Amino acid sequence: MKTLILIRHGESEWNKLNLFTGWTNVDLSEKGIEEAKEAGKVLKENGYKPEICFTSYLKRAIKTLNNVLDVMDMDWLPVFKSWRLNEKSYGKLQGLNKAETAAKYGDEQVRLWRRAFDVRPPAFEMNDPKSPRMDPRYAELTDEQIPLTEALADTIERVMPYYEGEILKSFEKHNQVMVVAHGNSLRGIVKVLKGMSNDEIIAFNIPTGIPYVFEFDDNLKLQCDFFLGDPEKIAALMAAVANQGKAK
Amino acid sequence: MKTLILIRHGESEWNKLNLFTGWTNVDLSEKGIEEAKEAGKVLKENGYKPEICFTSYLKRAIKTLNNVLDVMDMDWLPVFKSWRLNEKSYGKLQGLNKAETAAKYGDEQVRLWRRAFDVRPPAFEMNDPKSPRMDPRYAELTDEQIPLTEALADTIERVMPYYEGEILKSFEKHNQVMVVAHGNSLRGIVKVLKGMSNDEIIAFNIPTGIPYVFEFDDNLKLQCDFFLGDPEKIAALMAAVANQGKAK
Repeated sequence: MKTLILIRHGESEWNKLNLFTGWTNVDLSEKGIEEAKEAGKVLKENGYKPEICFTSYLKRAIKTLNNVLDVMDMDWLPVFKSWRLNEKSYGKLQGLNKAETAAKYGDEQVRLWRRAFDVRPPAFEMNDPKSPRMDPRYAELTDEQIPLTEALADTIERVMPYYEGEILKSFEKHNQVMVVAHGNSLRGIVKVLKGMSNDEIIAFNIPTGIPYVFEFDDNLKLQCDFFLGDPEKIAALMAAVANQGKAK
Repeated sequence: MKTLILIRHGESEWNKLNLFTGWTNVDLSEKGIEEAKEAGKVLKENGYKPEICFTSYLKRAIKTLNNVLDVMDMDWLPVFKSWRLNEKSYGKLQGLNKAETAAKYGDEQVRLWRRAFDVRPPAFEMNDPKSPRMDPRYAELTDEQIPLTEALADTIERVMPYYEGEILKSFEKHNQVMVVAHGNSLRGIVKVLKGMSNDEIIAFNIPTGIPYVFEFDDNLKLQCDFFLGDPEKIAALMAAVANQGKAK
């Protein structure tokens, strides 16, 4: 049996402030660190033993993984990081308040920017100081690879080569693989694994800090998938994410 | 110019208790975390930009590295971990109090176990529950590779293939390389780099949490080496390490 464990990072400083984050490299909040530790605890209690881990270039995902591994006493595991697992870029919306943006442009426009499969938020100029082109950690990327803004479709497109070329490939040598990333980069993986339509994946909310477990047979045919934890808590978390973009 | 940065992990829970640690996977103390953050701060202030990092399989080194990278805002750097960078194994001394061991066996015997180049402390049985053979993280090692006890000479011998094959080799693609490890595994690297005799390396104490910087020309010829930080503080730290094994 092969097992893939997906974890969406816990609350960040900007989730708390209800700001669009995207590629902005904000830190986990104290609550986010606690969520990560809780994820590690539930994995450990249920006897999971990942053998290799993948995460993004963003601090909130990396620190979630570090805390999960620390609680599991598995800090020594190999960890690979890629920009391809980063959150969806929100372009020039990054740093703006979600509710204020909704009040200004309307709930429907913000819903499209956040949730339409192929509607992109306003793009950065390449040389905007906040553009990832100006960040040395992305120096290896070509201009074509640098996302100045992204619709979910774009995020999924750049996640896929890494998912197929590195994550799935790691099952050749390993039985349990863990990926700690972001709401939208993980959506790409879930969409493929579950054969979801564009509309289905948009409506699907991955709760933060809850291990999402996929079990496969040895030929990587999906057998089942489930969230690891208390079902009521998970339902409440999923509803909370869905309501974030409302102006109120 | 090529730069190698060595950092010895900060205070662990067992350093504080004055216990022999070796391969025991103890956590950093609060002070150890502060030392790590301070190392990150001084590296950042001095403009260092490592491109790749290496550390051991032991939590106290990994968490030191995680804290250094966090403070430098460089969590995204590739990190490679190896058992070959682990601390010297103290065999059956692991878990014993250093001062009590000195009171029982004499300062001189403990000095030999801690500091003679080729005197090994009492060895584990292979199937001792505390032997690394019983720890799943070392499942990849052959029985010959599992250290049941080590003299410094043994530690250096198992560090070298990794130093030469991975760390030095990484300079083919990178200009700044960082290694966060342990007093004795780092001694192996320092011995080779500085061409020290067995006696010289034994007398050489690497202070905890102080970046030790080696600068090379592009052909990896050593140009200079120095500790990064306040000279008085560094001298005090080196003296403190040298005095740990005394019965008092």
